[in-house]
This record gives sequence, C-alpha cells and structure tokens, in this order.
Amino acid sequence: MAPNPPADLSRPIAIIVHGGAYAIPEEIADASVRGCEAAAKAGHQVLARGGSAMDAVEAAIRVLEDDPTFDAGTGSVLNEEGQVEMDAIVMDGATLKTGAVAAVQNIRNPVSLARQVMEQTRHCLLVGAGANKFAREMGVESVRPEELVTEAAQLEWKRFQEYRATVSTLFNRHELKRGSTDTVGCVALDARGDIACGTSTGGITAKKAGRVGDSPLVGCGAYADNASGGVSCTGHGESIMKVTLARQVLHGVEAGLAPEAAARKALEAMRARVDGCGGCIVLTPDGTLGHAFTTPRMAWAAVSAEGALLSGLDS
Amino acid sequence: MAPNPPADLSRPIAIIVHGGAYAIPEEIADASVRGCEAAAKAGHQVLARGGSAMDAVEAAIRVLEDDPTFDAGTGSVLNEEGQVEMDAIVMDGATLKTGAVAAVQNIRNPVSLARQVMEQTRHCLLVGAGANKFAREMGVESVRPEELVTEAAQLEWKRFQEYRATVSTLFNRHELKRGSTDTVGCVALDARGDIACGTSTGGITAKKAGRVGDSPLVGCGAYADNASGGVSCTGHGESIMKVTLARQVLHGVEAGLAPEAAARKALEAMRARVDGCGGCIVLTPDGTLGHAFTTPRMAWAAVSAEGALLSGLDS
Repeated sequence: MAPNPPADLSRPIAIIVHGGAYAIPEEIADASVRGCEAAAKAGHQVLARGGSAMDAVEAAIRVLEDDPTFDAGTGSVLNEEGQVEMDAIVMDGATLKTGAVAAVQNIRNPVSLARQVMEQTRHCLLVGAGANKFAREMGVESVRPEELVTEAAQLEWKRFQEYRATVSTLFNRHELKRGSTDTVGCVALDARGDIACGTSTGGITAKKAGRVGDSPLVGCGAYADNASGGVSCTGHGESIMKVTLARQVLHGVEAGLAPEAAARKALEAMRARVDGCGGCIVLTPDGTLGHAFTTPRMAWAAVSAEGALLSGLDS
Repeated sequence: MAPNPPADLSRPIAIIVHGGAYAIPEEIADASVRGCEAAAKAGHQVLARGGSAMDAVEAAIRVLEDDPTFDAGTGSVLNEEGQVEMDAIVMDGATLKTGAVAAVQNIRNPVSLARQVMEQTRHCLLVGAGANKFAREMGVESVRPEELVTEAAQLEWKRFQEYRATVSTLFNRHELKRGSTDTVGCVALDARGDIACGTSTGGITAKKAGRVGDSPLVGCGAYADNASGGVSCTGHGESIMKVTLARQVLHGVEAGLAPEAAARKALEAMRARVDGCGGCIVLTPDGTLGHAFTTPRMAWAAVSAEGALLSGLDS
C-alpha cells in the first residue's frame, strides 16, 4: 500500500459531528448543540494543522465522550444491572481498516480504545472482558465505575427499568422525556483526501447486560470509504442493524445521490421496512456535508469546507 | 405485520450450507463434504414437511455445530487463552429480524441461542458474559468447557500460538495444514417464500480473548432479505467485516446479477481492496443457488429446488 500523500492545505477539509437523534428534551437542547459545536471545532483544529481525518475524528469524539450531556463515555446510560457498558468504532476510508470495542467497562474514552484495536491488533472488534483485558495491555487508565455515571443517567435508569418503555418513548413515539441522552459520532475529511468516521455510545437505558447495538458494528453505526464518503448513525440501534444503515447510505451516494438525499432515502426505507427512526451524518470526498433524521430532533454541528461553523437541532 | 401465508408445497424450497472456506486439509476433506451434506439434508427435511426457513437453518446449523469436523459448537478452535468463545447469527428475510451472540462460552448450540435473542428479547446482539447470562435465563444447558474441545483444536492451538501465523497460512498463503477447521453457515427458502440464513463459528485459532469476527455481524457474516435473497459468508473475518461482504453480495443481486456472479464479484472486490480471501453461499427467492470462494477450497452442500443433493469442495 502506498503511503498517503502529504497534506495539501489547498484541498477541502471538513468535519461533521452528531450528538444523537431522538426526542432531545428542552433541558439539554442547548448543551447538546454547544457540545457538538465544541467537538466539531476541536476536530477541525486537527485538520487545519494538517492532521489526519482519523486524528480529527478521535479528537472530536473524545470531546463528546467527556461531555456528560451525551450517552458516551462520561454520561453513558445504565444497563439492566445498573452498569455502564460502552461501544465505539472508528473506520479509515483509505484502507477500510476498522477498530471497535463493545460492552467495555470502566474506561474514559472508548473511541481511543477502538482506534487501538485497529492499529495495535490484527482484529477489528473486541468485546466484553476481552476488550477490557486489551485495554489493560495497552495501559489504558481504568476509572471507577461511578466516575462515568451522571445523576441524569441514574434518574433515567430508575425511570426506565423496562426496556420496552425506553424504546417506544425515546425513538418511535416521540414523547419528550427529561434526562435522556444519546450516541455521538463524527465524520472528517482531511487535506490528504482521506475520510474517517467514528461512533461512540453507552447504548440504551436498561438494556440487557451484553447488549450491543448498531454503533460499534461496521456498516451499521458507521462506515467510511474514500471512494464514496463516510457516515455515522444514531437512533434505534436494532432498527439500524436490520438495514445496515451506514452502508445503505453510502450505496445511495455510490448510486449518484447527494449525501443528504442518500441519508434521507436510507432512513425512510428503514422506517418503512422495520418501523424504526434514527439519524445520520454524511461527508463525501469533495467536502459536501449532509445530515438527516426521522426522529423529532438530532443535535449536530459541522465546520464546512468553506470554514463555516454550522449546527442544528430541529432541522 | 401480516401473518405469513400457509406453506404451499408446490412452491420451490431449497437449502445450501457451507462448512468453511480455507485451505481445507486432505485429512478432513471427505468429512467436511459429508458433514455439509448431512446438514443440508436435515434442513431440507424441515422444509419438505412445510417447516419455516428459520427452522431449517437452525436444524442444519445444529448438525454442523455438533459435528467436530467444523469450527463451530463442538470442535470450535481455542483463543489465545486456550478457551472456546463462539459467535453465531440468524436472520429472517421476511422481517429483517436478526439475533446474534458473540464471545459466548460453554453452550452446545450458539445458533439456537442467537435465535432466542431474536425471538425472546428486543435486542439483536448479546456478547460475552451478558450472552451467557441470557443463556441461563433461557434455561440453556451449560456444558463443561472441555466438552466442546476436540483433539484437533488443541493441536491446532499449540501450532498457532501466534495469530499472525494463523491468518497468513490459513487464508492468504494457501498452505495446507492439518487440524484446521472453519465456520459454518446456511441459507434456506421455504414454501411460504421466506428466506432465512445463519452463520456459526468458533472464530480463528489463537484469537485474542473477546475477538469477534464477521460471523455474528449482520451484513458481514450473514444477511437475508426476502426481496433479494440470503447469504452466509466464511473466510478471513476481518476482511469480510471491512467490506460488509454479505450485504455487498445482495447489492449485486439487487443490481441484477445472478447469485453466483454476485458472490464472485463481491469476493473479488474484497481481494482487490483489502487483500482477503473467503467464500459465500447465496440463495434467491426463486430458488436459485449460488456459491463462490477465493480460498483454495470451500466445503458446501445443497438440496436444489429440483430436489437434487449437490456438494463440492474444490469448485
């Protein structure tokens, strides 16, 4: 494989992030958008100094994981046992290399561990106790379980002891609930023309122990290919898995659709076929940004190829 | 969702299974083909009496899991710690429902637990200790670790303490080794016109603890959609994941390719892009069977819509 060409800062660079697609309650609406903007800016700074798309994705997602507003890293929701189990993935569009972890516990930044799986092993996905064993091998700091748990996550857990209630209220019935949070993700294009993406989540409140949703699954929660673009998804994980949403969005792009139209088409197909809602962000090699969602809201922010900071919640 | 129509035994029924794509050594060549034939026949009996495609897939894969010739259930290979960790998935093409388990231990038939995830939970994938907890909740019999371990698996583990050696010899350098085994899978079409598929594996010898390959990942190791067909994949898991092979094969079918041509095209694209080899079986709603592989051999068997028992190893 030929080494990447050097960064050419006359080429377009761009980044887009999301902070989850669901019925984002008014109480955290502003924090969600501000958090996305901070992450997009952090990732864009990496790109602007000639850093790689993968470095930008990791930097942006670490900001979102460290922000307790979001259901990823610190602020992750609690499973049926009251435990945090986190999932994350990164993917490199130049080589299709991917690294992911699922049901990992007691680490602060799952996105960075996912990247270490990609770069330091011959595997793509490590789960459960094996993922934590690998984290120890890599010297990743172990944090006490309660360090990742916010008051909001505890409140939400008490409210949703039943997974049934969670899934119908949060995604498909569009009722607003306090204390909810959601998955984060990012897609970046660097000055070498490389695309990378990533997604990170604590999953869904009161999920069964060991439940893994779409986020860390290649082609479901994320996909990146320099030939077409990068995608990160969020929403009802089981629905996203059934239709391999990220891959479907890029198939739309490959068939000639603009990023936003491809995202919209794949999301509408998901709603029609499996009655599930979600959202996604897309970025193509020419620097075109796209986002779409079928949930009531999706928090997102971007720095466009023109250098403009963009963000939104209701559209 | 409307209930399925009753079985119409004048409609085509068909089933195809595989027992892994790799450099299958001469010592187990015959047992591999005979094992696939037995599984195809077991699944076909289910279809012939009006049973569902899902019942047929489960029946066929249980035969393969119980056969120590294959790397799934009994006969699974050992990870770096000398432990068995198994992965399995099923998918229902009528509804796109899927159930999967990964890194599960000490159960005899992971495919049946995967089906219970699909039918008894609101999730699609359970991993690690959580998957085993769910098995206990379902009353699945726990077996002693050594009950799943064959002498061949122990020998292979000693030979391949280094994952590096495994991956290059088994899949990509085409050297024949004794004692190797591989993943199993099945696709079936029932008399209601429904397609189902499944894949089950013990993974790759000397894998890291918690490593999950393509097999239990929707769109990678398996995918089924009544609209286009069903696929089960095998081969180098990390390569299959990078290209979401099962979904890509069905995209080829959706674009108008015959099943075998679609499989071949997706496998060649995988070799060209990520330098990985593998194989897959395909079945479309009209009962057309297809299989292809870029490894030296793939063990497979089928009962065609015309009722013919077919099988192969070198082609």
